[in-house]
Amino acid sequence: MTSANTISVAPPRGMRDLLPGQVELRDWAVSIILDTYRKFGFTRIETPVLENIQLLRGGEGGENLQLIYEVLKRGEKLEKVLANQGNVSRDELSDLGLRFDLTVPLVRYYSANQNELPNPLKSIQIGSVFRAESPQKGRFRQFTQCDIDIIGVKSELAEIELINATSTALLGLGFEQFTILINDRRLLSALAEQCGFAGDRMSSVFIALDKLEKIGLKKVIDELQNEGHEAGSVAKLESVLSNYMAKQEQGKTSFDDMKELFPEAAEDVMQALQNVIAAIESNSGGKYQIKFDPTLVRGMGYYTGQIFEVKYPGYSGSIAGGGRYDKMVGKFSGREVPACGFSIGFERAIDILSEKGFVPSFNMQRIALIVDPNRDKGTDIITAASTLRSGGNMVSIQAKKKDFSKQLDALLAQGFTHFCSFRGDVNNLELKQLSAK
Amino acid sequence: MTSANTISVAPPRGMRDLLPGQVELRDWAVSIILDTYRKFGFTRIETPVLENIQLLRGGEGGENLQLIYEVLKRGEKLEKVLANQGNVSRDELSDLGLRFDLTVPLVRYYSANQNELPNPLKSIQIGSVFRAESPQKGRFRQFTQCDIDIIGVKSELAEIELINATSTALLGLGFEQFTILINDRRLLSALAEQCGFAGDRMSSVFIALDKLEKIGLKKVIDELQNEGHEAGSVAKLESVLSNYMAKQEQGKTSFDDMKELFPEAAEDVMQALQNVIAAIESNSGGKYQIKFDPTLVRGMGYYTGQIFEVKYPGYSGSIAGGGRYDKMVGKFSGREVPACGFSIGFERAIDILSEKGFVPSFNMQRIALIVDPNRDKGTDIITAASTLRSGGNMVSIQAKKKDFSKQLDALLAQGFTHFCSFRGDVNNLELKQLSAK
Repeated sequence: MTSANTISVAPPRGMRDLLPGQVELRDWAVSIILDTYRKFGFTRIETPVLENIQLLRGGEGGENLQLIYEVLKRGEKLEKVLANQGNVSRDELSDLGLRFDLTVPLVRYYSANQNELPNPLKSIQIGSVFRAESPQKGRFRQFTQCDIDIIGVKSELAEIELINATSTALLGLGFEQFTILINDRRLLSALAEQCGFAGDRMSSVFIALDKLEKIGLKKVIDELQNEGHEAGSVAKLESVLSNYMAKQEQGKTSFDDMKELFPEAAEDVMQALQNVIAAIESNSGGKYQIKFDPTLVRGMGYYTGQIFEVKYPGYSGSIAGGGRYDKMVGKFSGREVPACGFSIGFERAIDILSEKGFVPSFNMQRIALIVDPNRDKGTDIITAASTLRSGGNMVSIQAKKKDFSKQLDALLAQGFTHFCSFRGDVNNLELKQLSAK
Repeated sequence: MTSANTISVAPPRGMRDLLPGQVELRDWAVSIILDTYRKFGFTRIETPVLENIQLLRGGEGGENLQLIYEVLKRGEKLEKVLANQGNVSRDELSDLGLRFDLTVPLVRYYSANQNELPNPLKSIQIGSVFRAESPQKGRFRQFTQCDIDIIGVKSELAEIELINATSTALLGLGFEQFTILINDRRLLSALAEQCGFAGDRMSSVFIALDKLEKIGLKKVIDELQNEGHEAGSVAKLESVLSNYMAKQEQGKTSFDDMKELFPEAAEDVMQALQNVIAAIESNSGGKYQIKFDPTLVRGMGYYTGQIFEVKYPGYSGSIAGGGRYDKMVGKFSGREVPACGFSIGFERAIDILSEKGFVPSFNMQRIALIVDPNRDKGTDIITAASTLRSGGNMVSIQAKKKDFSKQLDALLAQGFTHFCSFRGDVNNLELKQLSAK
């Protein structure tokens, strides 16, 4: 739609306006998540939407670095760059950028404020991030991320709390029978080592392995061969993975069954995994599962220990993911501090809830107080509204329209439960229920 | 603070990190405001943080237009601009900008989505806006605005609802005995006309008048003379204002006293003002005042009718402001739709609450479950935490530190109310209250 003076009134490309019903669902989900995380002792923190561009470019953002919205310098600083006509440099035009995730800002925040923060810090971050991706259905250039992180805990108690809190939040949102997959980056490294892959080529092994579920074993092996890995190493890995898949088919998927795949893994790494799985299983009440998945890789380069991901039956991709990143704080602050995080895929969760037709319920009457602004006195209207509102109800004053029946239908569609036709008498307010004909 | 690899970990200039206690206060305030506005029938909407730059530049943003953060074009579009070396144009470098208020985006949103929106639309917007102002104490380049607007209501019922809802929200935040000042732009125009000022020079009259409280009558008159207004007009205005100030001194500040200042004002304009004042007064329960202030101007150029502002005793400036802007939607959508809004100065309100040392109270115990990760089993810890949490309490698992007494002090400072020293027995969880020594 284009306006009278030809300024487009559409939102920017790849971004969206949220209608009242959409915001209501999102706000409900945020309140469930926040209430849950707060009960687990997490507290919300906030960082600016903008960060210095050097910080964003210097982070371990992988391909996200290509997707940064950069902010033009202003005033004299911009003039100085533009004065150099003939040689205006792209990289010197911007000094700020929009954050592309909440992890880089969190680590900067922790480094800047650690003296004033609790130790450990158990943070909640819910906020918008921005990526200039090619627009596609269901993917937007501004979207909400919803992270919890524990900074300062070395033991797997951090993983247990993160997984417990996130599972409880997902249950609160109505997701049941989801599966938490768990692995450890150090096991992946041990596996690659035990097969004899070169130490500097591990990431290419992980990238291929990550595709196992999607493309199958044969194609993974093809890819590794094409990448030029040593044939002996590829063959060894193929044998381990065949083993793994055979176990899967036989239903031998317990931790004890799986750990045989890692003869060279460190004892403490295996023990920590087992501890987390046992603790989460004991608390799940059968409402969700946790499963050791030695092929789980997760994309980000910064993970150093346990990694996890939540799958929801009937939906591809994951609805949450996270892991331990013990080296990242040290890169910013110069002092190594253990850290671990778990992120709910907020937009994915909302999409699934919307697809299911889920509508949050609220324990209040929503009353339309129908008035005639030409007849009724403002003083009386406001008194009537206050009276109806005093029971904790939502009361919206609405001028009576010519087509009253159509107006009532519209109010019902907007979520109103009752109406009250005001007749000027503040002591006689009769509520009627709205219902579809 | 500068990090090991020399990337600064401070937030960008003029922006800030919010610590847990600060976010807790802000979240509490947001929840009070949202709950109130929802009970009045307003619903939250959301627009992107970014808008097309043409839209932002084309709005009636006044001096804010100079403060826009512009976003650099990306990919081929940027290359094309930079290919023109020797003539790289500043204005062509950006295609998007960060919103500087929530009113321009609201009007765009309404224009784009009006077929899917309720009529009238009663919207809540709470979100960040961005202005590249010179940093100064207490003023930040990213800050929160908190607006309600009613689009589609011509009668003063809109003003009544906006003022009633905003007053109720302010009471909820603990502000009492504030004063709502109200005026009408059409009265200001009538006043200027009745004094004989030239029709095209009204805004300069209003700008001077706006300073009456701050600089006094004499300086206002000086300014008008220096601006070159006709001496007869300035003399007439001086007489009206002297009259006004004399009434003020005599305590004759009722609506009836004041309306004599506007012999040529339209009857319906005066009647509407009187209606609003009567309705709000009848509902205030003596907790706040509403006062007709014929010298109230308000800065923005887009107001067309009633304007209002909230003053809080002991603090300069205002804690809320708004008014009617009936022409703005038409400029975007080509179809005139009446509109009216009220904005709480969120940052100002938070500053005042902080200055007062206000701490929101929550009806839950905040329990630190003190464990020994080397001794206690994860399964037992998680069970103990769940048990304590089941009563609706907040329970945070904390590893026992060497200096236990210092740890307890730190937990108290973080807002914990109780602790429980876990001894491995999930059936024996003894809560102890934390208290300052």
